[in-house]
Amino acid sequence: MPTYRAPVRDMKFLLHEILNVAELAQYEQFSEVDVDLVDAIVEESAKFSEEVLAPLNVVGDHEGCTRHDDGSVTTPTGFKEAYQTMVENGWTALPRDPNYGGQGLPGVLQIACAEMQTSANMAFSMYPGLTGGAIKAITVGGSPEQKQTYLPKMIAGEWTGTMNLTESHCGTDLGLLKTKAVPQPDGSYKITGSKIFISAGEHDMADNIIHLVLARIEGAPQGVKGISLFIVPKFKLDENENPGERNGVTCGSIEEKMGIHGNSTCVMNYDDATGYLIGEENKGLKVMFVMMNEARIGVGMQGLGQSEVAYQNAVDYARDRLQGRSLTGPKNENGPADPIIVHPDVRRMLMETRALNEGGRALLYWAAMHEDIERHSDDEKLVEKCDDYLGLLTPVIKGYLTDMAMRTTIDCQQIYGGHGFIEEWGMSQFVRDARIAMIYEGANGIQALDLVGRKLARNGGRALMTLSAEIDAFVAEHQGNENMAEFTSGLKEAKDTLTQGTMWLMQNGMTNPDNAGAGSVDYMHMLGLASLSYMWAKMALVAQAAIDNGSNDEFYSNKLITGRFFLKRMLPQIHAHLAKMKSGAEPVMALAAEAF
Amino acid sequence: MPTYRAPVRDMKFLLHEILNVAELAQYEQFSEVDVDLVDAIVEESAKFSEEVLAPLNVVGDHEGCTRHDDGSVTTPTGFKEAYQTMVENGWTALPRDPNYGGQGLPGVLQIACAEMQTSANMAFSMYPGLTGGAIKAITVGGSPEQKQTYLPKMIAGEWTGTMNLTESHCGTDLGLLKTKAVPQPDGSYKITGSKIFISAGEHDMADNIIHLVLARIEGAPQGVKGISLFIVPKFKLDENENPGERNGVTCGSIEEKMGIHGNSTCVMNYDDATGYLIGEENKGLKVMFVMMNEARIGVGMQGLGQSEVAYQNAVDYARDRLQGRSLTGPKNENGPADPIIVHPDVRRMLMETRALNEGGRALLYWAAMHEDIERHSDDEKLVEKCDDYLGLLTPVIKGYLTDMAMRTTIDCQQIYGGHGFIEEWGMSQFVRDARIAMIYEGANGIQALDLVGRKLARNGGRALMTLSAEIDAFVAEHQGNENMAEFTSGLKEAKDTLTQGTMWLMQNGMTNPDNAGAGSVDYMHMLGLASLSYMWAKMALVAQAAIDNGSNDEFYSNKLITGRFFLKRMLPQIHAHLAKMKSGAEPVMALAAEAF
Repeated sequence: MPTYRAPVRDMKFLLHEILNVAELAQYEQFSEVDVDLVDAIVEESAKFSEEVLAPLNVVGDHEGCTRHDDGSVTTPTGFKEAYQTMVENGWTALPRDPNYGGQGLPGVLQIACAEMQTSANMAFSMYPGLTGGAIKAITVGGSPEQKQTYLPKMIAGEWTGTMNLTESHCGTDLGLLKTKAVPQPDGSYKITGSKIFISAGEHDMADNIIHLVLARIEGAPQGVKGISLFIVPKFKLDENENPGERNGVTCGSIEEKMGIHGNSTCVMNYDDATGYLIGEENKGLKVMFVMMNEARIGVGMQGLGQSEVAYQNAVDYARDRLQGRSLTGPKNENGPADPIIVHPDVRRMLMETRALNEGGRALLYWAAMHEDIERHSDDEKLVEKCDDYLGLLTPVIKGYLTDMAMRTTIDCQQIYGGHGFIEEWGMSQFVRDARIAMIYEGANGIQALDLVGRKLARNGGRALMTLSAEIDAFVAEHQGNENMAEFTSGLKEAKDTLTQGTMWLMQNGMTNPDNAGAGSVDYMHMLGLASLSYMWAKMALVAQAAIDNGSNDEFYSNKLITGRFFLKRMLPQIHAHLAKMKSGAEPVMALAAEAF
Repeated sequence: MPTYRAPVRDMKFLLHEILNVAELAQYEQFSEVDVDLVDAIVEESAKFSEEVLAPLNVVGDHEGCTRHDDGSVTTPTGFKEAYQTMVENGWTALPRDPNYGGQGLPGVLQIACAEMQTSANMAFSMYPGLTGGAIKAITVGGSPEQKQTYLPKMIAGEWTGTMNLTESHCGTDLGLLKTKAVPQPDGSYKITGSKIFISAGEHDMADNIIHLVLARIEGAPQGVKGISLFIVPKFKLDENENPGERNGVTCGSIEEKMGIHGNSTCVMNYDDATGYLIGEENKGLKVMFVMMNEARIGVGMQGLGQSEVAYQNAVDYARDRLQGRSLTGPKNENGPADPIIVHPDVRRMLMETRALNEGGRALLYWAAMHEDIERHSDDEKLVEKCDDYLGLLTPVIKGYLTDMAMRTTIDCQQIYGGHGFIEEWGMSQFVRDARIAMIYEGANGIQALDLVGRKLARNGGRALMTLSAEIDAFVAEHQGNENMAEFTSGLKEAKDTLTQGTMWLMQNGMTNPDNAGAGSVDYMHMLGLASLSYMWAKMALVAQAAIDNGSNDEFYSNKLITGRFFLKRMLPQIHAHLAKMKSGAEPVMALAAEAF
């Protein structure tokens, strides 16, 4: 059975040595944040994830969720109890608004905790994860009364939440959605329609489920301009705001999926269900998109989480499994064979996964830190920069990290040979669970289109210009440092290649938008590689300084080795992406649709 | 539910216009081969695969195989009847030796038929597939009596076969195997041990199962030099050579796997089972490896087969699914949205899959044709060339085609968005089934090592030199043809880049074998890309000639479009592989094993 050990050392390195999260204490809400508090939380979270959640991961995969004839759903053995422990320990409240019972801790700390929960048990982590999305939507769009009614219970974990967007005929293109809302005299609405792929749609872990539902008010315009957002509680609230009468919403069935079996992915049927409008009529998507950007970063984190746990298990296996001899002579002479970690191709797969995980984690936490600053700083220029970076990097974090997580989980499974294909060993589950992250919250192709079609051009390309200037300044500052030469030159190469790609897009994407579309995924990967080059340069700087200051901790020298691997063995891919992109739309679009 | 339509037109194009299989009629055994016969077989095979096998694919995935308390195994509903139809129609005998009841038809025709069966139902196709491997092993190593006893029944499909190599502690490194064989006075052996991952190890479709088992005769040397190969029938044969008494071999359990659920992958327990030595004592691996090379080409074919059926379904979905609008303005103005095939990134995924499938199919059939010639020609020089090419390209066909099939099946699943993740739509099964092809018959890392460590250097590098000369000659002959300019220059670029990689390996692999190991997978992909560039140039030549001769068949112009896509959007990857490879072993091996 697979195991999980939270990468606490790497997390602390990022939180303290790279990001200096204690600096967040300058903002009122984070005034209590210091190194000790952060360490204590990371360590407690590690324990909770390793001891409570990880042992249930395989159970969830094997048992899945069960829908009963009355529409109720039972989660896998142990999930309900684990959720109770989670609630009691306050994990659901960690980053939430203290005005509604939250602990008000930084989002960057939450992302570290969420990464651990996801590595330990992705299907489980989605129940509180979706609730977080719903909390965000109510926070952004809800009235003071709605916030007061729903947020405290949801933050405490007593109630969970869901996001109801997709219908069978539309997911990406929400303008097509048909679920309808009919205004009632009392100001509420009757919601009718059917939603699919609703994660955590029905389960037995909480007293109530607060569904956030996109629907079209009778008579509203067609398309995206006629979509409103509603709160539809599973149980309507009685006069004391406790769950009372059953609302007209039921789980019609549970989807049979490739992975995340422990999460109940439901078809939700709304039949004159009572709903309450959030925000303005026909402005539902605006609220939804605020929430979705955060969710997209969370999905990038899920990719990292699966890649990390797959890596750990593959390392263990590669150290234990004896098979063949090293090409350079036996390394385990007294044994019947060498451990397969001696083989360069096994190393290659492990090193690629490691370099992506550590680089991806840095990018993710760095972005989360920018979000904390954006929300709490009064410095307009700084807030603007944070907002720019988040806009630019959200599709990269979602699209690039999950694309790469698919490859790394497959590579880690490959290290197991035939045993990787057998469910008993658990590697298949990491691959199957990671698969969804490329798809939901906007398929990765949509992320790439969002990047090249929207985020890149916003405010005259300001976000990328600011980031490029930051990178240039970093290179200028450190290129004289001989120990940093590989990192600064690699970073410069990455940034220059990216710039060529950006220029090409500017010159060719306007005249024919299909040029941008055809190169969008390549460009997203280029920005991913460039971003990770920057993260690696930042990490190398700190690691090198620690060594220069006399540290013997091998953590630092290993960091440099891993970073150099990234530059030499992974960054070259950026040139292939540029070449493919520059071939333009013509080869991609030349075949007639009917000729496929 | 997914569907399958055999790509009959593309197959005929390859068999007749590219390979001219009718030329095989010059060899005595193939004297009846002509265009009409080939077409008739391809068409009948298409019908059988589409109508009989394809409808059972999802059934097999859902039901899996069931082991009963007595050790017997039931295959999924309909498998037994489909197998009966297969046998009655003679499909198991098609390429087999006429001296034992086979039809003696070319292997290149068999590979086309097997591709269809695999696309239609990979798990099913493995039952006759494994039998083919066992037939090959008995043909290569068996005594005349053994051939007479086993081959007719196996070729007729009355009995099936298995290959028993892996034990729980060894797969790649067979030198470690422990199953023992004790000589008996009557010349037979008692076999005892446990084998795992035995595909088609036990089932209800045939009267007997002929297990080929690797074991160590008592007192034999340790390591690979002490391994012998045995025939162990499930039912011992009575005096009339009919299945009689049960032998001491039983299915201990069926593995729960990520995919190919319809195939019974068994733990096989041998307990004093009666076995008969094939060939010489301690020379079992030699026979096994002959068989395995053919099996590896078959696994490459499995990758292609899954990629093809995934492509077809993704095309159908991309044409039907209405979502969003084309970036260049609506293409389906009267509908609520455009079909997603208008979107460049959806196109990119479809085109990549298409270009790999058509190029991969060409490489596969071209290799199979070389095998037919090798076996039947008297021309020593020609036989040598065929043998060289097969040695060189077998690891590429197995490793490159299955690596790429994993990516393409994932891309095709991605086109379905959330529906791709739901088992009901069938795309998940193609991904899960394709996954095993990267692993078995030698994991792809082993293929790459076989290529750079063995096949490349054999006979002073003769195979690659011959192939390079053939490519040079092709380029020289056609580079003056303006219509072929893209193809000849692309091919030249591919070949020159490959040559740089080969030179680097020669200069650096000797001094440090880890340099070869660390670059082996990159090199395998380089040779894959170069081989496909050659196939595309050959196909373009024929397609262009047809157009020049006045053909209006869009098949030819589409072929050129797809080939150009390959050169512009996929071939650039070869440079990234070269750059990664040339960074050498140091970055890959620098981290201490305990530091991972």
